[in-house]
Amino acid sequence: MRILLDVMGGDHHPRELVKGGIEVGRLRDIEIAFAGDGRLIESALKEFGERANRSFHIVSCSQVIQMDDPPVRAVRSKSDSSMIKGLQELKSETIDAFVSAGNTGAVVAGSLFTLGRISGIPRPGILAPLPTLEGKDIFLIDAGATADCHGDHLLHFARMGSTYAREVVGIEAPTVGLLNIGGEQGKGNRLMTKTYSLLESADVRFAGNVEAHQLIRHRPVDVVVCDGFVGNVCLKTIEGSVSAVTSLLKRSIRQSAVAKLGALMMRGAFGELRSAMSYQQRGGAPLLGVNGIVVIAHGRSDAETIGSAIDVARREVEANLTEKISLAIPGAEHDGS
Amino acid sequence: MRILLDVMGGDHHPRELVKGGIEVGRLRDIEIAFAGDGRLIESALKEFGERANRSFHIVSCSQVIQMDDPPVRAVRSKSDSSMIKGLQELKSETIDAFVSAGNTGAVVAGSLFTLGRISGIPRPGILAPLPTLEGKDIFLIDAGATADCHGDHLLHFARMGSTYAREVVGIEAPTVGLLNIGGEQGKGNRLMTKTYSLLESADVRFAGNVEAHQLIRHRPVDVVVCDGFVGNVCLKTIEGSVSAVTSLLKRSIRQSAVAKLGALMMRGAFGELRSAMSYQQRGGAPLLGVNGIVVIAHGRSDAETIGSAIDVARREVEANLTEKISLAIPGAEHDGS
Repeated sequence: MRILLDVMGGDHHPRELVKGGIEVGRLRDIEIAFAGDGRLIESALKEFGERANRSFHIVSCSQVIQMDDPPVRAVRSKSDSSMIKGLQELKSETIDAFVSAGNTGAVVAGSLFTLGRISGIPRPGILAPLPTLEGKDIFLIDAGATADCHGDHLLHFARMGSTYAREVVGIEAPTVGLLNIGGEQGKGNRLMTKTYSLLESADVRFAGNVEAHQLIRHRPVDVVVCDGFVGNVCLKTIEGSVSAVTSLLKRSIRQSAVAKLGALMMRGAFGELRSAMSYQQRGGAPLLGVNGIVVIAHGRSDAETIGSAIDVARREVEANLTEKISLAIPGAEHDGS
Repeated sequence: MRILLDVMGGDHHPRELVKGGIEVGRLRDIEIAFAGDGRLIESALKEFGERANRSFHIVSCSQVIQMDDPPVRAVRSKSDSSMIKGLQELKSETIDAFVSAGNTGAVVAGSLFTLGRISGIPRPGILAPLPTLEGKDIFLIDAGATADCHGDHLLHFARMGSTYAREVVGIEAPTVGLLNIGGEQGKGNRLMTKTYSLLESADVRFAGNVEAHQLIRHRPVDVVVCDGFVGNVCLKTIEGSVSAVTSLLKRSIRQSAVAKLGALMMRGAFGELRSAMSYQQRGGAPLLGVNGIVVIAHGRSDAETIGSAIDVARREVEANLTEKISLAIPGAEHDGS
């Protein structure tokens, strides 16, 4: 299996991403290809005691899509960027999966232009694994690929999320909830009341509405469905809240010697909190609905995060996820089936 | 000043809400009226050493709007409920403000039916004060009154939120941000790109897009505007995240004697966290845009929360907020001005 990593995206230096790729490549039976500035990649490989060979390829590119580039324009104008070159490798099947910590909008736009949608899928969705108190993740789709949605889009998010939970995570009969602002049917905005009816009669295990405060406390369902705008707000609110609580505690601790000692004694507890809530260990958010395995890693990805994103891609390839999604869409044409 | 408290709403027994009302009534120069089951109210007054008199009135009602009643039907069929009777007292100006911890949807529907909208305001919005690391609250509008919004609705939320921040909170020239999923203009869904243009040329101090993870960490603006669906998801996500982090820490602490001792030494820090993040001290969310001062208290309101909700109502009355909002709407007819 060959997975390509776009090392020019994200807030960290390419060196950090190359490091993550090398670590996974050593651990797993995966060939890692790096797309980006060839000299930077070679020097990082050398630093970590590797060289370009059968296990570590280099796809050298001259352009970079920046984090704040307007996605569609960037995708159109930067054909020699690591992102577009990487997606073209995926399209031509010289690699099995593409992983990027770059500009999310550009990954979505680039995937749509280069790979196209799976037949029968109206819009792509980003599936974000969220931490829960239970320990098991809950899967939110869409976390930001499609900001304006119809009910039919959400129905397909439900199908794709269920397929992912079943085929990649191994949940036998995943339940699906609709992210809403009330528990009963009829609550919410027009999109949600319409989608509720669609999901009720659909080929998914629909468990009704779920509310945002339940998600990470109670894990009421396996997959939670919403439009990409709401999903992205939800995701960023969790990130901001967890980080605000941690900062507040740190600040209070710094103000008292006794509290400092107390915090030291609670180190284990804080470590558990960090690991439970960190995105480092759930660094990969699959972009579902496009014709190929694409995983978006967190913008602040370090080597560990990139490692877990590559691992998500590996599991998707092993599960043959693109075909499984295609088979889960009633009435769509199934290539080669 | 006379403020009426609906004691039949919320998850707590009316006794707890009466207690909150009595405490504020003793502290401030406010006459408190209680609407609800007359016998329950009288017995609670007696328990706390008070009786129905000039300072504490009773509006006795036979019906109760439950937390899970469908709002519009409840408002239409339960005319002898504490909520509807209370709102009618506000309409007839025998009281200056109405406070309820009851069914939020019913408070919104009941206020619209009984009081109507302020001339020129297309839809009401709930303004929710959110905690921030800075210590000062950030004001989010709409937190759930209007689930389906047009740009014009959001423009008026911006105007109402600014008026509240200036007249009630005392922020001289409040800044307004648009809750969006990217910083640059053009990001987000259709509603947000349209609202961005409206706000740019509007009579508010527009500071551009803000993202959800910034809200409580950085307090980028004074007032943040979004539709009621997104705002409600954001509010509940913060609540759920803070509570999940706290639960996780508690669980880890219970598992180790050293951590238990450490937590004891950190009691001050945890206390600061609780007080910074608690809704008890910011219990009141004003419903803006209706013809009268209506404050919605948290459903899990205890005496302290109700006290702070009544205090929000008091400050709105003193600021003459309804008229101030009316004056802030260009082109609207201003009664008596």
